[in-house]
Amino acid sequence: MKSSILSEISSPKELKKLNYAQLNLLCGEIREKIIDTVSKNGGHLASSLGAVELTVALHRSFNCPDDSIIFDVGHQCYAHKLLTGRFDRFDTLRKKDGISGFMRPDESVYDPIVTGHSSNSISAAYGIMRANMALGKDATAVAVIGDGAMTGGMVYEALNNAGAKKGRFIVVLNDNKMSISKNVGAVSRSFMRLRNGKRYHRLKFAVGNALLKMGRFGKAIYNFINRIKDALKTFVYKNNIFAAMGFNYLGPVDGHNIAAMESILDIAKSYDRPTVVHVVTCKGKGYSYAENSPDDYHGVSPFDVKGGVEHKEKTDFSAVAGKTLCDIADKNPNICAITAAMTCGTGLSEFSKKYRDRFFDVGIAEEHAVTFAAGLAKGGMIPFFAVYSSFLQRGYDQIIHDTAIANLPVKLLVDRAGIVGEDGESHQGLFDVAFLSTIPNMNIYSPYCYGELEYLIKKTAGNNELAAIRYPRGAEKNTADIDFSGDYTLISNKAKKVVVTYGRLFSYALEAEQQSKNFDIIKLNKVFPVSDEVLELIGEYETVHIFEEGIRFGGVGEHIASKLLEKGKSSELTIHAIDGVFVNQQTTEEALDLYGLDTKAIQSAME
Amino acid sequence: MKSSILSEISSPKELKKLNYAQLNLLCGEIREKIIDTVSKNGGHLASSLGAVELTVALHRSFNCPDDSIIFDVGHQCYAHKLLTGRFDRFDTLRKKDGISGFMRPDESVYDPIVTGHSSNSISAAYGIMRANMALGKDATAVAVIGDGAMTGGMVYEALNNAGAKKGRFIVVLNDNKMSISKNVGAVSRSFMRLRNGKRYHRLKFAVGNALLKMGRFGKAIYNFINRIKDALKTFVYKNNIFAAMGFNYLGPVDGHNIAAMESILDIAKSYDRPTVVHVVTCKGKGYSYAENSPDDYHGVSPFDVKGGVEHKEKTDFSAVAGKTLCDIADKNPNICAITAAMTCGTGLSEFSKKYRDRFFDVGIAEEHAVTFAAGLAKGGMIPFFAVYSSFLQRGYDQIIHDTAIANLPVKLLVDRAGIVGEDGESHQGLFDVAFLSTIPNMNIYSPYCYGELEYLIKKTAGNNELAAIRYPRGAEKNTADIDFSGDYTLISNKAKKVVVTYGRLFSYALEAEQQSKNFDIIKLNKVFPVSDEVLELIGEYETVHIFEEGIRFGGVGEHIASKLLEKGKSSELTIHAIDGVFVNQQTTEEALDLYGLDTKAIQSAME
Repeated sequence: MKSSILSEISSPKELKKLNYAQLNLLCGEIREKIIDTVSKNGGHLASSLGAVELTVALHRSFNCPDDSIIFDVGHQCYAHKLLTGRFDRFDTLRKKDGISGFMRPDESVYDPIVTGHSSNSISAAYGIMRANMALGKDATAVAVIGDGAMTGGMVYEALNNAGAKKGRFIVVLNDNKMSISKNVGAVSRSFMRLRNGKRYHRLKFAVGNALLKMGRFGKAIYNFINRIKDALKTFVYKNNIFAAMGFNYLGPVDGHNIAAMESILDIAKSYDRPTVVHVVTCKGKGYSYAENSPDDYHGVSPFDVKGGVEHKEKTDFSAVAGKTLCDIADKNPNICAITAAMTCGTGLSEFSKKYRDRFFDVGIAEEHAVTFAAGLAKGGMIPFFAVYSSFLQRGYDQIIHDTAIANLPVKLLVDRAGIVGEDGESHQGLFDVAFLSTIPNMNIYSPYCYGELEYLIKKTAGNNELAAIRYPRGAEKNTADIDFSGDYTLISNKAKKVVVTYGRLFSYALEAEQQSKNFDIIKLNKVFPVSDEVLELIGEYETVHIFEEGIRFGGVGEHIASKLLEKGKSSELTIHAIDGVFVNQQTTEEALDLYGLDTKAIQSAME
Repeated sequence: MKSSILSEISSPKELKKLNYAQLNLLCGEIREKIIDTVSKNGGHLASSLGAVELTVALHRSFNCPDDSIIFDVGHQCYAHKLLTGRFDRFDTLRKKDGISGFMRPDESVYDPIVTGHSSNSISAAYGIMRANMALGKDATAVAVIGDGAMTGGMVYEALNNAGAKKGRFIVVLNDNKMSISKNVGAVSRSFMRLRNGKRYHRLKFAVGNALLKMGRFGKAIYNFINRIKDALKTFVYKNNIFAAMGFNYLGPVDGHNIAAMESILDIAKSYDRPTVVHVVTCKGKGYSYAENSPDDYHGVSPFDVKGGVEHKEKTDFSAVAGKTLCDIADKNPNICAITAAMTCGTGLSEFSKKYRDRFFDVGIAEEHAVTFAAGLAKGGMIPFFAVYSSFLQRGYDQIIHDTAIANLPVKLLVDRAGIVGEDGESHQGLFDVAFLSTIPNMNIYSPYCYGELEYLIKKTAGNNELAAIRYPRGAEKNTADIDFSGDYTLISNKAKKVVVTYGRLFSYALEAEQQSKNFDIIKLNKVFPVSDEVLELIGEYETVHIFEEGIRFGGVGEHIASKLLEKGKSSELTIHAIDGVFVNQQTTEEALDLYGLDTKAIQSAME
């Protein structure tokens, strides 16, 4: 009887033939399948469980792929995948050549765009809608967005652009209450104050001006009136950002009642203008562990379904970064830490509790985070912004414009740098060295072990420099008794061949070197800029192999190679890096093997 | 009598000694000085004229540099410069080694951060305020932001983060009416709909659910109630995004009444929480030409004060891009164009009028623009996003994540690529080739003349490729009778030395070559990726000089050099590019001379 309804559904059209009793059974089967698969493969559990009925309602109300549904970020798209012809392959979730944990157009026509990074769904869906309009296509575009993703500035840009226009465009706000209070900041917290109708507005303008001209007494009255009015309004009314942006607003509706959602979606469809449907769901719905602590079940590693996720104190680069920041913050009141909605992921939980006044969770807002850090630095603080490499791509302009031109000593802790594994293309940290090294005044470091990370955080905190410290997801691989305080470290076998590398790949190079002892290693402690001394040293070798866990174009390998050629060095040189492709989901070890960056590959290159 | 008060003011403190009659005279002197200087040097006129009284009021209410005032973008900061010790040097505005047209911390302690890119002021000021709080500094941070800049997503991220917190933090909305209706989209257009108090909310939720369960009839009632309610509220109330974000809201106040503004700023100062002061100004105030057509006087070239700006039909790369888009849009209904608040600057005025349904001004919202373009492409359109190079930095992640992973055929028209001249560091288009070439699936082109630009727009429109076409500010320099349809064009003198270059610098190389005929030129028609054929050809030369109008690190020069070394070529090679520095304001010719990229430099390198 397992998945007896679900297994029969090869396209969302078939959902429309089922009655509500069958649909309820189906939702149970979907949950069972999701829990079973995620417990084996890891993945995003709580969000997907919360959106099961919503997904069913959406696919009954709309006709995909003619209509387009984009699940923002994609944390909640597993039910969508199961209902759009991917049930059979769902066991391969997040595995090499398997089903992605996010939307991927190359996987299915039911996935309109790539998801993974937050807050882009409204922009993309609005684009699709405008294309539909321009090309006379009778179809609706739908963006499904969680309350957490509502903190990203793109959402605001898109709402502002789309609001009060024509067209069949629906934004479904998947509001799972609990997290809205934590994530959305002012949007959810604040009550609304109101501006006034036109006539009243003019009157107020005139009266206000008159009062203000009356000196201290008039000012006091003006102030008093403002306060009373605001207090009154705050009491009665609440804020609604969507309505403010010119969207039709419907809801809230129970996100676990399929019939109710279908009804409201039908109304939304009947409008020829942008409409928001506010759906209230329960994150983790249907799996009691996840319902009780949805945070712990947001993204999970494999776990036992009966016993739930085990809580283990992890030691990894993120944890070491967090601990080191606590150490230095204890002694130096100018140290502060910033996260863009990744307190736990970047290891800042302890810091957030111990140094509440110097800890800033700004929401999913990397642009703001960088410039806010620049402001903190300008004001005399030593700000560390801990952020995943692929998300920092959002702050590129702010690093250049708001930070580097004035050479403000902001510190970027670039977590998840390099291959990240199962999350795939959208999350690989392959671009940071390339884009950061385009920026004048930038200094890039890349520790290979915890000790070096700790050393670098302490060192850069004490220096008046703009710095990026990049380190991989997970644990250190090995440690060696080396001094990493200079620009580089040489592991010498007096060989004529050298491996030049940095960060995690140094561990692999070390492993290869210890077995064969037939090559030297130059470890770049400072990845960029590369000093002339290091260039001269590299240029002395007959054969140079540069290994880089990142994109080749714009990487340090190209910087070094071009400088060597300019210096007239004729070393035989090879750059081993990610050569102009996106890296699909697979384990980190599989990817390093595939792209020739692991111990075996280094050995084979240096034979 | 000229500037008799203004010339005596060496710091803003002295403003506090003046009475209102003197202040009014002073404002006249400031306007005179601004008009006089901008008429000679060019610059941002209308915004600066509008903010004269506001600036005086701010500097009387606050104590800079202890307090911090950030003028967003900086288009309105000329009065600020004149009142903070830069009167004597103001004649050097926008000239080499002169006063910047934007805020520059290295110019004055009164300029807290770099400005030039829009919408960053609230983030930076909030950072400074939090540093003040953490370090126990008794000071206020102020962001002055125009209504146009309110369309950028960073504003929303910052408001969301700062709202409903404690601290002395003031945002001054400089609202010059006219542009608010045009720029801010939904924020300004829409009226507010309201959510309800908590109890009513729960009731509505229950009643709504009950109605929706009643089938067609209940749904109709629900729909009807919603419509009535919304219509009613829309009539009475207006939206206020600031208040919605948990900011105290004061205003509106007359932005040309110093006393009124001082009073309201004093109230704002007395709050220990984020406060918005809504100031209404007249763009261009005090110069009748500018008041009457503020758009034409936003940014101006030198002009005659008595006669005003002359309207000339300009022919430049932007105009050719716009015209070409019109040509192809005429024949192909799938062509569409996007701008981020730069319709005129990017040459799209005609397109915007002729193809209204296929033209999208999304506001100052480059992130959204890129992803919106991706959505349009997904929906079957051929979207061209015309954007200044330095502003496209804001869309880096969206190009990678929303566009390139799925290889959507978006076309980026990268205007103002390379040196831009007098706007300085913040506006130089030096990074685009470097950051775009990190991105898999990206194709980069760079025309040197109008004909090539036209050719490339037509070619890429017909190809299913993700493409960036980058071209400089201003006019073509020369044209030659060459075929640019292949990946490269060889200008051969059968020499052993070669210049490799692209874009505008090809014109300079051509000039140098025509005089000496002692070197060849390889013009990269396709800048990136560089084909193996081109690499082999370059590798055949004894001496290779690569000239690139952009940052060296990550540029095409480094790509080529590294590939040559890998191929075992031992050409003598030199890369001429911007070598890890920001380029200050100066004319384009001055900068190209300074960095060794002009005809003379090419000649000298090839001797």
